[in-house]
Amino acid sequence: MNRQQLRALLDQVRSGGTPPEAAQEQILQFLRQSPYEDLGFARVDHHRHVRQGFPEVVFGQGKTPDQIAAIARTLVGARQNLLVTRTTADAHRAVAAVVPSARFHELARCITAEIEPTIKGRGTIVIAAAGTADLPVAEEAAVTAEIMGNSVDRVYDVGVAGLHRLLREHARISAARVVIVVAGMEGALPSVVAGLVDVPVVAVPTSVGYGANFGGLTALLAMLNSCAIGVSVVNIDNGFGAAAIASSINHLD
Amino acid sequence: MNRQQLRALLDQVRSGGTPPEAAQEQILQFLRQSPYEDLGFARVDHHRHVRQGFPEVVFGQGKTPDQIAAIARTLVGARQNLLVTRTTADAHRAVAAVVPSARFHELARCITAEIEPTIKGRGTIVIAAAGTADLPVAEEAAVTAEIMGNSVDRVYDVGVAGLHRLLREHARISAARVVIVVAGMEGALPSVVAGLVDVPVVAVPTSVGYGANFGGLTALLAMLNSCAIGVSVVNIDNGFGAAAIASSINHLD
Amino acid sequence: MNRQQLRALLDQVRSGGTPPEAAQEQILQFLRQSPYEDLGFARVDHHRHVRQGFPEVVFGQGKTPDQIAAIARTLVGARQNLLVTRTTADAHRAVAAVVPSARFHELARCITAEIEPTIKGRGTIVIAAAGTADLPVAEEAAVTAEIMGNSVDRVYDVGVAGLHRLLREHARISAARVVIVVAGMEGALPSVVAGLVDVPVVAVPTSVGYGANFGGLTALLAMLNSCAIGVSVVNIDNGFGAAAIASSINHLD
Amino acid sequence: MNRQQLRALLDQVRSGGTPPEAAQEQILQFLRQSPYEDLGFARVDHHRHVRQGFPEVVFGQGKTPDQIAAIARTLVGARQNLLVTRTTADAHRAVAAVVPSARFHELARCITAEIEPTIKGRGTIVIAAAGTADLPVAEEAAVTAEIMGNSVDRVYDVGVAGLHRLLREHARISAARVVIVVAGMEGALPSVVAGLVDVPVVAVPTSVGYGANFGGLTALLAMLNSCAIGVSVVNIDNGFGAAAIASSINHLD
Amino acid sequence: MNRQQLRALLDQVRSGGTPPEAAQEQILQFLRQSPYEDLGFARVDHHRHVRQGFPEVVFGQGKTPDQIAAIARTLVGARQNLLVTRTTADAHRAVAAVVPSARFHELARCITAEIEPTIKGRGTIVIAAAGTADLPVAEEAAVTAEIMGNSVDRVYDVGVAGLHRLLREHARISAARVVIVVAGMEGALPSVVAGLVDVPVVAVPTSVGYGANFGGLTALLAMLNSCAIGVSVVNIDNGFGAAAIASSINHLD
Amino acid sequence: MNRQQLRALLDQVRSGGTPPEAAQEQILQFLRQSPYEDLGFARVDHHRHVRQGFPEVVFGQGKTPDQIAAIARTLVGARQNLLVTRTTADAHRAVAAVVPSARFHELARCITAEIEPTIKGRGTIVIAAAGTADLPVAEEAAVTAEIMGNSVDRVYDVGVAGLHRLLREHARISAARVVIVVAGMEGALPSVVAGLVDVPVVAVPTSVGYGANFGGLTALLAMLNSCAIGVSVVNIDNGFGAAAIASSINHLD
Amino acid sequence: MNRQQLRALLDQVRSGGTPPEAAQEQILQFLRQSPYEDLGFARVDHHRHVRQGFPEVVFGQGKTPDQIAAIARTLVGARQNLLVTRTTADAHRAVAAVVPSARFHELARCITAEIEPTIKGRGTIVIAAAGTADLPVAEEAAVTAEIMGNSVDRVYDVGVAGLHRLLREHARISAARVVIVVAGMEGALPSVVAGLVDVPVVAVPTSVGYGANFGGLTALLAMLNSCAIGVSVVNIDNGFGAAAIASSINHLD
Amino acid sequence: MNRQQLRALLDQVRSGGTPPEAAQEQILQFLRQSPYEDLGFARVDHHRHVRQGFPEVVFGQGKTPDQIAAIARTLVGARQNLLVTRTTADAHRAVAAVVPSARFHELARCITAEIEPTIKGRGTIVIAAAGTADLPVAEEAAVTAEIMGNSVDRVYDVGVAGLHRLLREHARISAARVVIVVAGMEGALPSVVAGLVDVPVVAVPTSVGYGANFGGLTALLAMLNSCAIGVSVVNIDNGFGAAAIASSINHLD
Repeated sequence: MNRQQLRALLDQVRSGGTPPEAAQEQILQFLRQSPYEDLGFARVDHHRHVRQGFPEVVFGQGKTPDQIAAIARTLVGARQNLLVTRTTADAHRAVAAVVPSARFHELARCITAEIEPTIKGRGTIVIAAAGTADLPVAEEAAVTAEIMGNSVDRVYDVGVAGLHRLLREHARISAARVVIVVAGMEGALPSVVAGLVDVPVVAVPTSVGYGANFGGLTALLAMLNSCAIGVSVVNIDNGFGAAAIASSINHLD
Repeated sequence: MNRQQLRALLDQVRSGGTPPEAAQEQILQFLRQSPYEDLGFARVDHHRHVRQGFPEVVFGQGKTPDQIAAIARTLVGARQNLLVTRTTADAHRAVAAVVPSARFHELARCITAEIEPTIKGRGTIVIAAAGTADLPVAEEAAVTAEIMGNSVDRVYDVGVAGLHRLLREHARISAARVVIVVAGMEGALPSVVAGLVDVPVVAVPTSVGYGANFGGLTALLAMLNSCAIGVSVVNIDNGFGAAAIASSINHLD
Repeated sequence: MNRQQLRALLDQVRSGGTPPEAAQEQILQFLRQSPYEDLGFARVDHHRHVRQGFPEVVFGQGKTPDQIAAIARTLVGARQNLLVTRTTADAHRAVAAVVPSARFHELARCITAEIEPTIKGRGTIVIAAAGTADLPVAEEAAVTAEIMGNSVDRVYDVGVAGLHRLLREHARISAARVVIVVAGMEGALPSVVAGLVDVPVVAVPTSVGYGANFGGLTALLAMLNSCAIGVSVVNIDNGFGAAAIASSINHLD
Repeated sequence: MNRQQLRALLDQVRSGGTPPEAAQEQILQFLRQSPYEDLGFARVDHHRHVRQGFPEVVFGQGKTPDQIAAIARTLVGARQNLLVTRTTADAHRAVAAVVPSARFHELARCITAEIEPTIKGRGTIVIAAAGTADLPVAEEAAVTAEIMGNSVDRVYDVGVAGLHRLLREHARISAARVVIVVAGMEGALPSVVAGLVDVPVVAVPTSVGYGANFGGLTALLAMLNSCAIGVSVVNIDNGFGAAAIASSINHLD
Repeated sequence: MNRQQLRALLDQVRSGGTPPEAAQEQILQFLRQSPYEDLGFARVDHHRHVRQGFPEVVFGQGKTPDQIAAIARTLVGARQNLLVTRTTADAHRAVAAVVPSARFHELARCITAEIEPTIKGRGTIVIAAAGTADLPVAEEAAVTAEIMGNSVDRVYDVGVAGLHRLLREHARISAARVVIVVAGMEGALPSVVAGLVDVPVVAVPTSVGYGANFGGLTALLAMLNSCAIGVSVVNIDNGFGAAAIASSINHLD
Repeated sequence: MNRQQLRALLDQVRSGGTPPEAAQEQILQFLRQSPYEDLGFARVDHHRHVRQGFPEVVFGQGKTPDQIAAIARTLVGARQNLLVTRTTADAHRAVAAVVPSARFHELARCITAEIEPTIKGRGTIVIAAAGTADLPVAEEAAVTAEIMGNSVDRVYDVGVAGLHRLLREHARISAARVVIVVAGMEGALPSVVAGLVDVPVVAVPTSVGYGANFGGLTALLAMLNSCAIGVSVVNIDNGFGAAAIASSINHLD
Repeated sequence: MNRQQLRALLDQVRSGGTPPEAAQEQILQFLRQSPYEDLGFARVDHHRHVRQGFPEVVFGQGKTPDQIAAIARTLVGARQNLLVTRTTADAHRAVAAVVPSARFHELARCITAEIEPTIKGRGTIVIAAAGTADLPVAEEAAVTAEIMGNSVDRVYDVGVAGLHRLLREHARISAARVVIVVAGMEGALPSVVAGLVDVPVVAVPTSVGYGANFGGLTALLAMLNSCAIGVSVVNIDNGFGAAAIASSINHLD
Repeated sequence: MNRQQLRALLDQVRSGGTPPEAAQEQILQFLRQSPYEDLGFARVDHHRHVRQGFPEVVFGQGKTPDQIAAIARTLVGARQNLLVTRTTADAHRAVAAVVPSARFHELARCITAEIEPTIKGRGTIVIAAAGTADLPVAEEAAVTAEIMGNSVDRVYDVGVAGLHRLLREHARISAARVVIVVAGMEGALPSVVAGLVDVPVVAVPTSVGYGANFGGLTALLAMLNSCAIGVSVVNIDNGFGAAAIASSINHLD
């Protein structure tokens, strides 16, 4: 099936000649058998957007600026949005040479280029962060959620030791369809937030801390043992993963 | 505000005299100031259903059958659904004496009594379990999701070592609005399932295993490190928690 | 130096004939060289009250009821207050046979007998506990603090997932001279409490929880990593130790 | 309420026109609603001194010299004492350009500037350290305690393997109102010191050691398991935290 | 026994004058008593090939290029194949100066020189790797297996989150006599592969991952807890060790 | 395809009418699509023998004697060999009532019934065990290997602290085609054995030990870090798993 | 060589006809080739006394009373001293039936029978124990050291929190040729003792403690990290092992 | 008491005028009250040699070359032997400028200067090391033992995977009065050696290894769990500590 056939199929769906279920099945059938584009050092999956709701994301760590730029050109060439995580200003310079619209998010350590406006999520994703040292992870989540088509509200510096700052933001947090909570040290913020809202809370432990923090293990364990109902957890510093989950929740009809 | 005032307020909402937002705010305001019912050994929260979407749940572990029965009578007396987790046949006998409709779910170790049909979730929650030893946790999730008003589809005994059994159930799993995946030992099932669907996956590690399993720690770590996008994790053996999260996702408009 | 000489010395202090510093030095000198009373299975330290501010405390675990009763008789015979921790109703029956005024605190698993009213601490020790499962540890702290001569205010069931219950008790907590905070699971309560008060907070992690709680390790690590200023920590389930520290703080002039 | 109103209120208190309790309540009410000063990269809390007894402390790690200097200027501009922890000589140069009186404590890795003499603590804080490698942490505690208005007595190089050196300092240690004990390796010193005094002991494990020391974990665990009564513990290398607790104890009336 | 005697013995074997079993016993007897060649910084074992089926392997880590070159010259001088693992391009330059045929395998971080064609293994060793970050370990295994005389089939980028890519390679994997599976993160691939084949699977956890991956510990534990039959495990990142085991299996008659 | 068709096919293979490869492919094709027999509490896989080389094995732990007997009857009814691991004398009584030839191996905690002689492995599997406390695990391996059709040689009580006992058995160990080494405590035996042989060594750590043994973790780590080439490792106490791997190696052509 | 030949050889040594070195070599040669006595469930090593300086020791844990009695009869029948560790009163009854002189040491959980007076160690072994809960381990060490022919001095209840009790025993401890120090909880005693003496200190951590003690791990780590020179460590609760080492030191000429 | 008085006292001892016990007591009395020499950054203990049998040892890690040189000058000025551990060539250059006879031991990372020949230990200390990567630790032990006055025999590269190399050195090892065994990876060597000798074995785990070695933890745990009698253990990489213990054993009369 080529691009023209796909368009024809979709036209038939719009006209009622083919029920959507049948068309979708036909397309997914096709996708599962199609090859990846092989760049030698990476295989780019051009069907991921159809299959999983968002194009392939580039995990920048361990890749050279040239490699990242090559992948970026391939993705953007196929009219797909670009998201590179755990990357650097050097990589951005290489990407910008081939994708001029590419932006660098310094704090988030991400590169994005919005080629096609994505379907918007239904509500707002609130990203609450405990301390300023947690912001790189929070921003990785925010940038990811935005490029995936979600409206994001950042509620930062609301650690539990200053409860009044958190309570002052109660209304903003309560307006979320899903909340991402980012915290290091003792990782207590998700429990407090989950007690204030009735929507899903995705908790992200960060490696912020020292001594018996053990690189974020303390915050991770605390979040897994939350006494509040409604908290699920992702890996330490995994802002991207939390945003992908929140986006998938926010895109549910 | 009493029950009559509440009804009057809601009638005004139906007639358009009061916008729903305003009415909801008024009610929540009330709830936050109201007292708990104190049984001496426990404080029962009668407003939880309005506030969080489901009545108070009784964690049975460490409570006597008589204590559980007393709480059950109080909740059911207030016309609220009953869910007791981590409990026993003995506790069920005590509860059944005061709540004749209470059912005991032996494998799930839960007692339920559906007093008021709850608002139904929008889609189906699939609960996939890797092995037969994981079933108590899977059933705790299933019973919890059902009493919280969700349609549940159980897909059991689909461990990754017998991939063909899992793939045979691909269609059922793909039909979910949210998937709960329960697995012990190496905890690999959530990664495989998340690669097959594009909806949120809530992973529950179980303490099934021996030796270097460390009471479920291995499965927990594996799930947190999933290479698949879309997996969030709850505590070991926490079938209840996973179901509460899945239900909150499934009830999103 | 015998008891009469001690009394004579103290009379001289009252009359101004001996400065208190000199008398105190004389007494401490004596105490450091005096023998213990050896019961065969234990050596009872009769000078501990003078030296450390409270008589010897009996750690009941691993001792038979008869052994505990023998120690109790020895201590009370020397007109000292009695505190037995981690003990049982059986041990209480044995103690009551020789010390009729001995009381058993079932939840705290302690036996006490107040023979001499102790010097009162200057302020109130607030003991805040997160959940009902934390009460045995909280009560061990409370009973210990009371027999050591402190006024105690119990603020129970104020876990962080129900923030409004905690905030409703803000005034009581703020009235403390020192606060003991007892919590299991994610151990978040001390951080929140320390943000609300400006007095020392002694945090006690409990072994309440399951799965990745690891017998209280999660709560312990969380408390050590508290983002709030003013939190110090004792061993898991060590209600006695926390109360002894709080009492020593509360008795400072 | 502005500064003049505050002064007027205090004058009324002095003259008896307003009872202190009422005035204090009025002031605290005000403080809880007032904004932070936002520097873009940080929010400086000008009310912390009134609320918690000491101005905001700057955690230097991860901040640039320029950022630290900007915060320092803001705090000192508001006539507040300055304490920067975990910082460098570079940061001190930047701070000294805007706060000429700022001192750098090299071993403690702290910057201080005493703008307003703080209210003095009632007694002496003894800081005992086991070995020379523990001195950076001990000095962080000492500098913190001093800038918070306490008299400090340093008793260094008194590790338990050379007991006679420790016993020779018995008198100095016994004169403390609260003792901070800093030790790495096997972390035994707090147990020994707590057996020699009857005042609170705050133990600080350090990351000094190698091999099975695990970055201070061994000392931390040893201190939590102390057989002595009266020892509470803070995070590894947290000299600042220990001093803040000791200061809050030492300022109790 | 000298080289001429050995040759004479072997000639006798060929002519039937000496049965192979007797000759082999004579040779092994000799080998067990013979000395190593001592280079000062290392003792080279020239009998290892006869005794263990492959010449001494040089573990490059911690050795200087000159040392590696000296060992290489010694081994090659004795007409033995060369394998250096965990090495660098610098070391290769030094080796190439004395062994011109030496090749550098950059991704595998290995140097090889095939001096004598080794006896071929009976079947194919499939090396399956989950992600691109696992390739250095997979290539170390591949290069090792090849220089040890095995036919190798590389099946890369077949992580469990993209099951269809793995299943598409089912035939290649099933054709193996032994399978090496290399995976980091959650380490799930060996369980899935072992369910698809009936030959031995050697699992190699890699240190690929972050956060709660703990340097490969998660993958290691997952593989040890595999629910599939037929999986044995080697140390984290030990591609060489896995290949040596696979080669020894593949050389069994 | 039914049993008669299968027989006809095999006759054609014997007569040369069908090449074995083609016949095998036909049969495997069939097996992959066929259903399991569902007993309600378990699904018995009758095709496993053809697919994986041995019938389904019953993991006895957590199953009632009646359940085990029911599975045993089903398997034996289909003319398949029976192996039940981690089981009890009670379960054996129940099994013997329906499978009179079933034997109980007390030390190995296994039940076996050899219905069809299995195809014999090509060589001998040596099972070496360090101490007498390791024998239950060693015997589980031995019984498993035997019922899977292998010749087994038990070399017990050859711990490394008594090296002469081990060396005295050098000849027996060297005669193996694959060696299983079972050891607890410091787990050193596999390293020593692997240095003496040139065939694959499968190491099984046991939970034998106390104190810092941590339930076999020490032996497990030691085996993973073996300095000898050719050692792969299975989970703690997993004698069955080691034997299944050894058998699969021993059955390679 | 039989017993008579041995006696003749020794007579020749006494008369100077055979130099001791030659005789010793002859005997050791013999011992290394001689068989063990096989009881079916155990192999008793009758040459151990000559080879290692003490007869075989019976580790009682996991053996039945009958098995222990059978081994005891065999050893005593060969005129060797008997030591059974980790055993029970039941086992003692069985042993006493065949070895009437066998004594049971309840606190040490040992059985001994001194058949031949052993060669006395040169000095005294001091066994210092921190608390009463450590006494079972200390007594296992004491009983072991005594049956191995050493003079033992028990210095109990000298924990570091009561330093004056320890210092009062300075002279007794200083008189030792080797010191065994037994301590649980924070395990600080060996460091203090090693600072007071200049002879070897063997430290035994015990599993005494709770919470973050982790079954003796804290004491073990503390002892390994001792800041004192001269401390070596054995496994948790391994009183027997410590005594065997101390005895071997004490028997050095 | 000055040096002349000390000499006079000793002369009296030689002449019988003063019994040695009395003289020793007089000297120790003196030593315990004398001050340390304070260099500002360190306090040098000039009495350590008399008290503990060897002068103060300088732990070089974390000290500047100038500081080390200053301490060296002070010690040598007092006619004491010099040992600096964990140091560098830079430090040696600084030391050599003030102590020309100072030698640098590169592999051992030690500086020594033998000013006064020390009293010789009675026998030989064998230092056995498993692999070449363990040599820095083994050499630290060897250099320490030599400067402390012991005869040392190095038996290197005798890892357990090549048993024949170890057995070839049996005679040398058996000739030791005490054996130090240094090993990384699986840490098996001490168990094997302790089974071959009847003198004390001091085991030193090294941090040699990778992956699940955890910086030497595996070797440490293995050594603590040794199945052989007579093994005690020191901290990871603590060659100095092992040698100090071995020396104290070797100097026992």
